[in-house]
Amino acid sequence: MDRIRDSFARQGLMATLGARLVEVAPGRVRIEAEVTPATAQQHGFGHAGLTFALADSAAGYAALTTMEEGQEVVTSEFRISLLAPARGLLVAEGRVIRPGRRLIAIAADVHGDDGAHVATALGTMVPVRAG
Amino acid sequence: MDRIRDSFARQGLMATLGARLVEVAPGRVRIEAEVTPATAQQHGFGHAGLTFALADSAAGYAALTTMEEGQEVVTSEFRISLLAPARGLLVAEGRVIRPGRRLIAIAADVHGDDGAHVATALGTMVPVRAG
Amino acid sequence: MDRIRDSFARQGLMATLGARLVEVAPGRVRIEAEVTPATAQQHGFGHAGLTFALADSAAGYAALTTMEEGQEVVTSEFRISLLAPARGLLVAEGRVIRPGRRLIAIAADVHGDDGAHVATALGTMVPVRAG
Amino acid sequence: MDRIRDSFARQGLMATLGARLVEVAPGRVRIEAEVTPATAQQHGFGHAGLTFALADSAAGYAALTTMEEGQEVVTSEFRISLLAPARGLLVAEGRVIRPGRRLIAIAADVHGDDGAHVATALGTMVPVRAG
Repeated sequence: MDRIRDSFARQGLMATLGARLVEVAPGRVRIEAEVTPATAQQHGFGHAGLTFALADSAAGYAALTTMEEGQEVVTSEFRISLLAPARGLLVAEGRVIRPGRRLIAIAADVHGDDGAHVATALGTMVPVRAG
Repeated sequence: MDRIRDSFARQGLMATLGARLVEVAPGRVRIEAEVTPATAQQHGFGHAGLTFALADSAAGYAALTTMEEGQEVVTSEFRISLLAPARGLLVAEGRVIRPGRRLIAIAADVHGDDGAHVATALGTMVPVRAG
Repeated sequence: MDRIRDSFARQGLMATLGARLVEVAPGRVRIEAEVTPATAQQHGFGHAGLTFALADSAAGYAALTTMEEGQEVVTSEFRISLLAPARGLLVAEGRVIRPGRRLIAIAADVHGDDGAHVATALGTMVPVRAG
Repeated sequence: MDRIRDSFARQGLMATLGARLVEVAPGRVRIEAEVTPATAQQHGFGHAGLTFALADSAAGYAALTTMEEGQEVVTSEFRISLLAPARGLLVAEGRVIRPGRRLIAIAADVHGDDGAHVATALGTMVPVRAG
């Protein structure tokens, strides 16, 4: 889906975090990034802000796959549980739980490259007219 | 509080996001950062991941002010509502709602430099032994 | 506000829980209920379900005060932290953080009659056309 | 598991809501209740407080299945998304996402008897010494 790749490419923070869009399917998107010193907390694990940013973006783009052209989505609220230290390659998968014209309920999970379940999240995306 | 300044200085992500620790008081910490192209989403507003990272770090350090030396805190879960587009200088204030030896309930708010209420959050921090 | 009192009176669960609507102001509503054996958990404290129901209803009606006649609100999502055991008379206050035509961001707090801060919550209400 | 059935039987609110404990397995518990006028909101659908109470209790008992005898759990925080109107027989399933000695991460889902996905939730349970 080109519009998702285009939008992702324009997100400065995703580039700053070294994030890559690795899969786009209807209602499901995966984004990954390696934990580096530039995205770590004080002990070298991935910062919660990194984990959140990957989960939130994967979920937002998953929501966008359910919208018509000319629409975008913004995060209304997002709730993340951090279950294990974030190490290595983090893979965030966002998926749509319930599509909607006014609200899209989404979930996201982040795993580490050793298979650890790093985080799980629920949130709400809201459609907005594009630029 | 030196240990908080030291810890903050070791968080790679805070440097990457251009964040500054601007106030440390018992149970209350402020962190700020300017929205830049490197931390923006596709329309130039601050990415939700930036807002989250500032709010989470301010809340975590607010929790740390209530702990004894030799302890640290990690985020257990965090729930953020994004209320307005993030523009300009973002100021995140974290504060302790209820201290505890096992769990610390925290809140955080983020405002933009025009006074806009950008985000409000509730979360839970958990003490861990340092190092 | 009569429509809020009318709506409250039609909520079977509020009567079942012994809840009373005690204050309605623009953007702010208070509901209270005594913890009884019928609304307790296994140790005689108020059940989390009681605390949630009071907080959610107070927040929903606070949101409704900002809506035009002929509209109602439903809860989209709600996040509650339970901070202290619920005893005695519980007073829930709901308030609007950010009004809106599509989403209303709300907060709620519940206190016990000894002043204990029993719970704090953030949530999202969504307007719907009334029956 | 007898201790779970005993504890459930002592929860006044569960009886008040007409809830039944229908399944207890390691890390997974199901509770159900019929929506009645006594547990409805103003339009006859199940009140969010009912849905929450079932989800929270199912999740709490799911957490308890992972604890040793002589311990109990209390809800620390709980975040629920209400996805569809609650009608008919509600079945809440709670399950443990990550067990722990200090915190147990849980999830819960509630379905209606027509298969509708009424609610999804994430939360945190905390072990406490019994009695």
